[in-house]
Amino acid sequence: MEAVNAVIRERMASRHAPRIPEVTAHLVEAGGKRLRPMLTLAAAKLLGSDDIRAVKLAATVEFIHTATLLHDDVVDESTKRRGRPTANLLWDNKSSVLVGDYLLARAFQLMTECGSLEVVTTLANASAVISEGEVLQLTAAQSLETGTEIYLNVIRGKTAALFSAACEVGGMVANATPAQQAALFAYGDALGIAFQMADDLLDYGGTSAIGKNIGDDFRERKLTLPVILAVEKADVEERAFWTRVIEKGDQREGDLEEALRLMQKHGTLEATRLEAHAWADKARAALADLPDHPLRGILADVATYVVARLT
Amino acid sequence: MEAVNAVIRERMASRHAPRIPEVTAHLVEAGGKRLRPMLTLAAAKLLGSDDIRAVKLAATVEFIHTATLLHDDVVDESTKRRGRPTANLLWDNKSSVLVGDYLLARAFQLMTECGSLEVVTTLANASAVISEGEVLQLTAAQSLETGTEIYLNVIRGKTAALFSAACEVGGMVANATPAQQAALFAYGDALGIAFQMADDLLDYGGTSAIGKNIGDDFRERKLTLPVILAVEKADVEERAFWTRVIEKGDQREGDLEEALRLMQKHGTLEATRLEAHAWADKARAALADLPDHPLRGILADVATYVVARLT
Repeated sequence: MEAVNAVIRERMASRHAPRIPEVTAHLVEAGGKRLRPMLTLAAAKLLGSDDIRAVKLAATVEFIHTATLLHDDVVDESTKRRGRPTANLLWDNKSSVLVGDYLLARAFQLMTECGSLEVVTTLANASAVISEGEVLQLTAAQSLETGTEIYLNVIRGKTAALFSAACEVGGMVANATPAQQAALFAYGDALGIAFQMADDLLDYGGTSAIGKNIGDDFRERKLTLPVILAVEKADVEERAFWTRVIEKGDQREGDLEEALRLMQKHGTLEATRLEAHAWADKARAALADLPDHPLRGILADVATYVVARLT
Repeated sequence: MEAVNAVIRERMASRHAPRIPEVTAHLVEAGGKRLRPMLTLAAAKLLGSDDIRAVKLAATVEFIHTATLLHDDVVDESTKRRGRPTANLLWDNKSSVLVGDYLLARAFQLMTECGSLEVVTTLANASAVISEGEVLQLTAAQSLETGTEIYLNVIRGKTAALFSAACEVGGMVANATPAQQAALFAYGDALGIAFQMADDLLDYGGTSAIGKNIGDDFRERKLTLPVILAVEKADVEERAFWTRVIEKGDQREGDLEEALRLMQKHGTLEATRLEAHAWADKARAALADLPDHPLRGILADVATYVVARLT
């Protein structure tokens, strides 16, 4: 991971525009979990490869992630990320948009250096799924018609697509067999879904340790699983409440508390917790098709960890 | 070009998010000149290739261009593009940011289908130069210290990088020799610079036929060549004027007229026109290293055309 951080620092530089490393460093140095690049390294090493290309691809994956964070914070008009003010607040939306574009371009430069079109295709596909998921969230999010199927598409784009691609490209530089590639994809996909469901649940009751404010999703009228399940079980009066606060965005004092009460009444927070655990189980099960290696145990622990925050 | 348009229409679709083709179509169907994809097709054909990959790459180049327009309009807070309301005005900034990201990802998917890492590298490099140039413009633009060297870096990023890459990738699928590749790069680079200088000049005196408002750059406090040259020749009083309107952004009624008067006084509009013509000459000269072919004459005419708007 130190080698990955060195590549990140080296490649976020810009000869002409000092604003770029300023903005990037603010986010990159903020102490994110570096979960995605870790997946790439682990996938390669688990299959017996110490190929330096895995390090470059790990940095690539983190660049793509950082670019999407910069753009997300503009789209969500966020003011806080990882417990610190967001780049769009410290500088401006313009810098966040353009520096995000720059990081994405740098990511594609870096991945081509690995000399594998299969790798480029995998990460280009992931980028397309990510932005498609974000647009879908934008258009579908405030409609009570949004069901669990659309929700899965949204979080696959938002989170799982890059998790699975991060695992896959690690396997590619290690010459994984097709069955191993499928296992890496399935692990990353399920892990990403479990991770995002946990995040969505924590938004309604976790601690503020992740640097977000409780109820952010509610205020942004995002239909995440706890709300979707509550809308499904709503009676006429409750549906009118959800229509007002989510569809119409007419939110008043006490509404977040009322939303929490309805979610508890219908057990949707608990149902979301169980669903996240089920996806973590799927992630662990996918590892069975990979070689017996200490890192396989660590990847299983990662799946346990992302939902352990919920208990 | 019809085949290119068909690829563009096919690939801008999204199974999950109908907002994407809506926003894209608004821009793509607005009747842009399609100059960049035309360069790719012409470069390939001029070197004797009818490779279908040139069509895909032409569509790729237009996708990258469209993505940058969507993001530019957010950054510049523009309201008009090609004589129509911009996407950020019709929908919102969020859609413009995310649909731009989607188009960029689609561009990278499309270019990998051509099976050439050299092509991917060239377009990834161009994307990095584009966004670096935009950030540079953002940070340097409102400082009177901005000289012609920084201006050249900015417009290389803004315009010339994609023009030259569009020519280069056309040459790559046609197996151009290194000398031919160099000629294609030099032509695209010089053409792009001439094109952008012409645009920057028209902002201070052209017709509104290009769908922009006269004085937009002035109001956005952009230091383009006509202003940079006027600042270089400014006396103390004139420098105080530029400091107020550009650096401090304190613009009052009559300031645009005063700026025009100073540019005319120092002959900077005429100097910019001559500089644009000089770059168009360089573009035509670069064609000498390419085979004798009717398309070579057409490319020469394109260079003449981009500055003919100025006379």
